Amino acid sequence: MQLGLVGLGKMGFNMRERLRTGGHEVVGYDPRPEVSDVASLADLAGALEAPRVVWVMVPSGTVTHQTILALADVLGAGDLVIDGGNSRYTEDGPHAKLLGDKGINFIDAGVSGGVWGLKEGYGLMVGGSDADVARAMPIFDTLRPAGDVADGFVHAGPVGAGHYAKMVHNGIEYGLMHAYAEGYELLSAEDLITDPQAVIQAWTNGTVVRSWLQQLLAKALKEDPGFAAISGYTEDSGEGRWTVEEAISHRVPMPVIAASLFARFASRQEDSPTMKAVSALRNQFGGHAVHRISESG
Amino acid sequence: MQLGLVGLGKMGFNMRERLRTGGHEVVGYDPRPEVSDVASLADLAGALEAPRVVWVMVPSGTVTHQTILALADVLGAGDLVIDGGNSRYTEDGPHAKLLGDKGINFIDAGVSGGVWGLKEGYGLMVGGSDADVARAMPIFDTLRPAGDVADGFVHAGPVGAGHYAKMVHNGIEYGLMHAYAEGYELLSAEDLITDPQAVIQAWTNGTVVRSWLQQLLAKALKEDPGFAAISGYTEDSGEGRWTVEEAISHRVPMPVIAASLFARFASRQEDSPTMKAVSALRNQFGGHAVHRISESG
Amino acid sequence: MQLGLVGLGKMGFNMRERLRTGGHEVVGYDPRPEVSDVASLADLAGALEAPRVVWVMVPSGTVTHQTILALADVLGAGDLVIDGGNSRYTEDGPHAKLLGDKGINFIDAGVSGGVWGLKEGYGLMVGGSDADVARAMPIFDTLRPAGDVADGFVHAGPVGAGHYAKMVHNGIEYGLMHAYAEGYELLSAEDLITDPQAVIQAWTNGTVVRSWLQQLLAKALKEDPGFAAISGYTEDSGEGRWTVEEAISHRVPMPVIAASLFARFASRQEDSPTMKAVSALRNQFGGHAVHRISESG
Amino acid sequence: MQLGLVGLGKMGFNMRERLRTGGHEVVGYDPRPEVSDVASLADLAGALEAPRVVWVMVPSGTVTHQTILALADVLGAGDLVIDGGNSRYTEDGPHAKLLGDKGINFIDAGVSGGVWGLKEGYGLMVGGSDADVARAMPIFDTLRPAGDVADGFVHAGPVGAGHYAKMVHNGIEYGLMHAYAEGYELLSAEDLITDPQAVIQAWTNGTVVRSWLQQLLAKALKEDPGFAAISGYTEDSGEGRWTVEEAISHRVPMPVIAASLFARFASRQEDSPTMKAVSALRNQFGGHAVHRISESG
Repeated sequence: MQLGLVGLGKMGFNMRERLRTGGHEVVGYDPRPEVSDVASLADLAGALEAPRVVWVMVPSGTVTHQTILALADVLGAGDLVIDGGNSRYTEDGPHAKLLGDKGINFIDAGVSGGVWGLKEGYGLMVGGSDADVARAMPIFDTLRPAGDVADGFVHAGPVGAGHYAKMVHNGIEYGLMHAYAEGYELLSAEDLITDPQAVIQAWTNGTVVRSWLQQLLAKALKEDPGFAAISGYTEDSGEGRWTVEEAISHRVPMPVIAASLFARFASRQEDSPTMKAVSALRNQFGGHAVHRISESG
Repeated sequence: MQLGLVGLGKMGFNMRERLRTGGHEVVGYDPRPEVSDVASLADLAGALEAPRVVWVMVPSGTVTHQTILALADVLGAGDLVIDGGNSRYTEDGPHAKLLGDKGINFIDAGVSGGVWGLKEGYGLMVGGSDADVARAMPIFDTLRPAGDVADGFVHAGPVGAGHYAKMVHNGIEYGLMHAYAEGYELLSAEDLITDPQAVIQAWTNGTVVRSWLQQLLAKALKEDPGFAAISGYTEDSGEGRWTVEEAISHRVPMPVIAASLFARFASRQEDSPTMKAVSALRNQFGGHAVHRISESG
Repeated sequence: MQLGLVGLGKMGFNMRERLRTGGHEVVGYDPRPEVSDVASLADLAGALEAPRVVWVMVPSGTVTHQTILALADVLGAGDLVIDGGNSRYTEDGPHAKLLGDKGINFIDAGVSGGVWGLKEGYGLMVGGSDADVARAMPIFDTLRPAGDVADGFVHAGPVGAGHYAKMVHNGIEYGLMHAYAEGYELLSAEDLITDPQAVIQAWTNGTVVRSWLQQLLAKALKEDPGFAAISGYTEDSGEGRWTVEEAISHRVPMPVIAASLFARFASRQEDSPTMKAVSALRNQFGGHAVHRISESG
Repeated sequence: MQLGLVGLGKMGFNMRERLRTGGHEVVGYDPRPEVSDVASLADLAGALEAPRVVWVMVPSGTVTHQTILALADVLGAGDLVIDGGNSRYTEDGPHAKLLGDKGINFIDAGVSGGVWGLKEGYGLMVGGSDADVARAMPIFDTLRPAGDVADGFVHAGPVGAGHYAKMVHNGIEYGLMHAYAEGYELLSAEDLITDPQAVIQAWTNGTVVRSWLQQLLAKALKEDPGFAAISGYTEDSGEGRWTVEEAISHRVPMPVIAASLFARFASRQEDSPTMKAVSALRNQFGGHAVHRISESG
């Protein structure tokens, strides 16, 4: 079918390719002319036959919001907008309302798979009405991985449910990555283990902990043995924070995912005010030596 | 090749079958005559040609220790004992010494894969000398999953390294399971998500969190929707505790795996003394109501 | 000085008494006629000379909001409202705006000390303009504990700062209580310790961990040895949740306070969906026994 | 009464002074002649009338063990040794046995209060027989803080119980310090709070979180505003590790104290292998940028 695709970055670019390979007619728009098929969102709208389906794949937050506002101007009643970015689910309701006031329908779609999705397909979690999801199903069917539809695609609920499911997915991802990483660090600390990298490699098949992430960890270690070239400074892109906030809101105990989130925060601090206070306290009551800033050059 | 196999429980029974299918001659011993090939360990030793290789697959701790003591009596110089159970790695050195005093060699082998190993193969992590590992390699090659040897087998280091790697593997497993489970609970708590089970199913393909455990979670939910039939009471079998103890010993921060371990402890308490104390404190300073035991029937 | 006081519950009732003992003229209002000095908020306003100062000491959230709306109707330009409840700091700005539109000034005041404040004084953290704080200072001086003003009172910043400081105070309180409680549980689990209660009592003087909360823990154990009469079910009143949410918002690692918050959530669950999922997973891969609901009677 | 005191460091030196002020005859030994009363342990034994009481106040571990071995040589049947250091409780049994073989009695004593104990007294937790504790009671009575004996002293149980109680005390201390420090960091991160230090000061009186540690935190901030002069690098001296190990051994959930322990480990790492692995994984699946070592100068 015909699809407008806004945003041709790492994710959108690959999705356009996968969709075209799958036989769809994709008109892509991106502010960078070298990758864009059209010059503007207005041109994009003009290039599509109504009723149109337009997939938004841009950074979450302000950029997504501005894009949806702009699409509300160039699209019309009966069109359908799909937000495939990592938007917070709380933004989906307002976006659906804003578009709905012009008769434009809305689906939120969580998309997983990263740079590997082009080849392996993307895990999809979508929220919206049955009719809207049915309408976009040919697109979803091409993007999702081969195999049983229920294994790589879910219509998770009404508007918001797709991004909610994706948010939880990413929260889990934080916990999984941290569990593997803690194990890696312990292996590396133990003299008995001749080659931690070989152990990580050996876990990719047959073990209980085998997974796609486990394979990537083995691959990463092959490319950079001992992680000698990179620092532990680790960003977070929102979903982890939102997941813990949702857990608090629902009174769900979430110690594991929260711990992995806090460790990312700590990784970005040059020094920890908390630990400065702890160190100062030890010195106060015990006369324990502290590390002066001047020493810790 | 010829192998003695002591212990024909859930794991050993399947391993005998996989090894026989692979063309090995296995003489199995188990105290339960209905599964055992011989009547005693002495008979087992008698049924094997020297130099013998005997695999021990019995519960860790006392049973393993008694078995190794007994094997020291019936085996002789040049024989090789492989402890494939979940022994703590600290027991491997003493066992190697005990057997070594009689000229018997020793390998510790961590075996992963559970009840699925019969069909899919077992992930193997072994510790011992190069010569001993080479000698038992035909057995390892049959037990491990198909594919590249480095993806399902590792000679992790000297005696103790196999069980150490398996211990860390299981510690990671605790963290992974808990991360998935926290996500499942949050999905279940959110009204937007129509069917948490369908989301879990959809994550089995294409997503970043896909894994064998993720597939098992989907399977478990199919068999018992909403986990209505089971309680949260969860045992632990030692490796999680040992992993955190090793982390402490090596000064490795391990918040995620430790949190998953503590949650298991808590799951087995009828009521929490810690929370009783917290509740009593709130009542003391704030006059906040507490739940009396008599009310909480 | 003259003060209107809205809300004569556990906190407000005692504060009225402390203020009157301190020589102030307090007109209290409460919907319960048996404790109220006047019949309505309108009567309260009528009983005070303009410019009035009115302290609000009612449950946070809806009740506080409704009270502030009602006061906006009966008070006038130049009056001053002090919200002494446990309101979330994000509500202070809107309340200040709402009142400010009528020329009414606003202070937010965090009040600590619980039922003991009547006798020992209340720790106070306030937010507002210098002029407003100076105007209410005679009230603060009577409510705060004896001693140096800087040791029991702080003008923490502009509107919102008082409740923010109180929120953090309560977050810390969660962590402190949990640390004591974990120690208590461990003492109780160890056979070497003849009488855990005696140890808790002995920590009230001379030790590094001595504190007011530590004294209350000793007192609570005297009143209910072994906490035999109460359950671990523990409420939370908002500040702990907000503190962790603020930590996430500021990217501050907060593992200790978060862990104490999550433990409260868990204490209120009859069974843990997370642990059900973990238990089901163990059963899937290992054939480990699970506790069926029918067994766990 | 007469007392031998081995070890005149920060703690022992002050204790000698407090005991002498209390009317006891103290013979102190330390390898540093400038503080020692005698030249050797043999001289110490010679200077005391049998049956002797000798208090050992030296670093835990090897030094304590060597000291006890040496005392076994110079003391005799009927004498009493008190280990007042921070020994792990598991060492008390062997020490009691070692001394007992020569007819020498043994008490383990946990001593809290740090450098402030000279003036304020030391919180004491002791383990041993009733008779031995009664014999040393005049010493304990002088060392403990003024007031009710039960508020600063406890005979916690048989040999080992004193150090066990002290270990748990210190574990709690880790959690308390971390809770205060997390709150301090959050206050410091929030713009609404004009002066975090003033808030910390204001919490020293009247609040629920007031404590001796809270007072020390305020004092430390006065001495080094913003903790500008010290780093967050924080040692741990064993008790925190042992407390978490005991929790694991007793299956006691201990998330708060464990989190504070792990944060200390992390504070001493230049970079975190765990976070390197997490960062590498993010890069693998998402193409997310990593911080190269070369950039992070």
